[in-house]
Amino acid sequence: MKVAVLLSGCGVYDGTEIQEAVISLLALNKRGIEYHCCAPNVNQHHVINHITGEEMQDETRSVLEESARIARGDITAVIDLEVSDFDGLVIPGGFGTAKNHTKWAFMGPDGAMNTQVRRIIREFHEQKKPILGLCMGPTTLAKAFEGTEVHATMTVGSTEEASPYEIGDISKGMESIGAVAEMKTLKEISLDTENKIVTAPCYMMEANIGQIYDNIEMAMDSFKEML
Amino acid sequence: MKVAVLLSGCGVYDGTEIQEAVISLLALNKRGIEYHCCAPNVNQHHVINHITGEEMQDETRSVLEESARIARGDITAVIDLEVSDFDGLVIPGGFGTAKNHTKWAFMGPDGAMNTQVRRIIREFHEQKKPILGLCMGPTTLAKAFEGTEVHATMTVGSTEEASPYEIGDISKGMESIGAVAEMKTLKEISLDTENKIVTAPCYMMEANIGQIYDNIEMAMDSFKEML
Repeated sequence: MKVAVLLSGCGVYDGTEIQEAVISLLALNKRGIEYHCCAPNVNQHHVINHITGEEMQDETRSVLEESARIARGDITAVIDLEVSDFDGLVIPGGFGTAKNHTKWAFMGPDGAMNTQVRRIIREFHEQKKPILGLCMGPTTLAKAFEGTEVHATMTVGSTEEASPYEIGDISKGMESIGAVAEMKTLKEISLDTENKIVTAPCYMMEANIGQIYDNIEMAMDSFKEML
Repeated sequence: MKVAVLLSGCGVYDGTEIQEAVISLLALNKRGIEYHCCAPNVNQHHVINHITGEEMQDETRSVLEESARIARGDITAVIDLEVSDFDGLVIPGGFGTAKNHTKWAFMGPDGAMNTQVRRIIREFHEQKKPILGLCMGPTTLAKAFEGTEVHATMTVGSTEEASPYEIGDISKGMESIGAVAEMKTLKEISLDTENKIVTAPCYMMEANIGQIYDNIEMAMDSFKEML
């Protein structure tokens, strides 16, 4: 068993949520599932100073090169990824997926998405291989299936728990392009067995790293069953 | 219980080894130990493209700002760290500790070290609080104790196992400035109970993320007992 892990940079505010990514890699390894990381070979939408939250105006960074930091250099550009070589796909969260894979962070469901990211998501689904989306990852899945017959049930969290984000609005945005949004707390995951899609809220909720670990472990158990 | 985690950037080749850092934070949380990250507020020695391994000549990055990516923004400059507020110190590996805390990666034991990093290491030791050093972290500890009466026993790995690095040479360098270097494999840790120092090889050895997790778990158990 070998899965692809789709990254979007390195750092929660302009790239992949690092803790979710590392814990995903660990959870795969613990289950005897090989992984290989990939990311689009494009520039980041922007670079955020992770202390101030401000944009660093003069900086330009590559999504692929920054993602390689998490992968310790072992990474493939999405354009070169052969979906037939893999048994499933994992998409950790972070704003990167909503800034570099899609423009959700700026335009909600209305923006364009990276065509190669869309290609691999659709191919994994067409080949009936499971997909795991964490945190904001489900918004990228919703965009990938926009305009198709796939109406996947997914979660980006729950309005019943504390969150720094507008879970209700994001859920509505997903539904506006054909997804079915479920409310799930940090102790829950969302399962769409027909479409083989597992999603989990992770850092969409206020959480500590141990809670993220537990949420990913739960999601990874279901993902493995679908492999 | 609350410990400080000393970072050195974000990415194995010019900063903190990300997987070691995240797994350390997770291991602390699982044991009910609070943590707070810190890093020196200086520029990185350089920036490495993590795909090619080449230096990115025109880039300048801040160790503190890049470290904040791992810490999700919650980080303190080392100069502002009050050691009396913490019960112990964790130093994950990566080349960053040997490029940004010391110059070991370029000059072995002969280079200078960041004076604030030296200050907190010496203060943790003087206050009899335990220190955990992973991977290349022990070289920074050796530099911090250079010229003192502290001759800590530590490991940077073993020549008996496969490693991408010259474990023997690094060990000799540590001994040349007063440390006692032990050979320890990826399944072992080094314990200096007198100095309350725990060290573990981690990615100094050829390893996968699950082996890193096991090595850090073992080290963290001993670290916790010393707290």
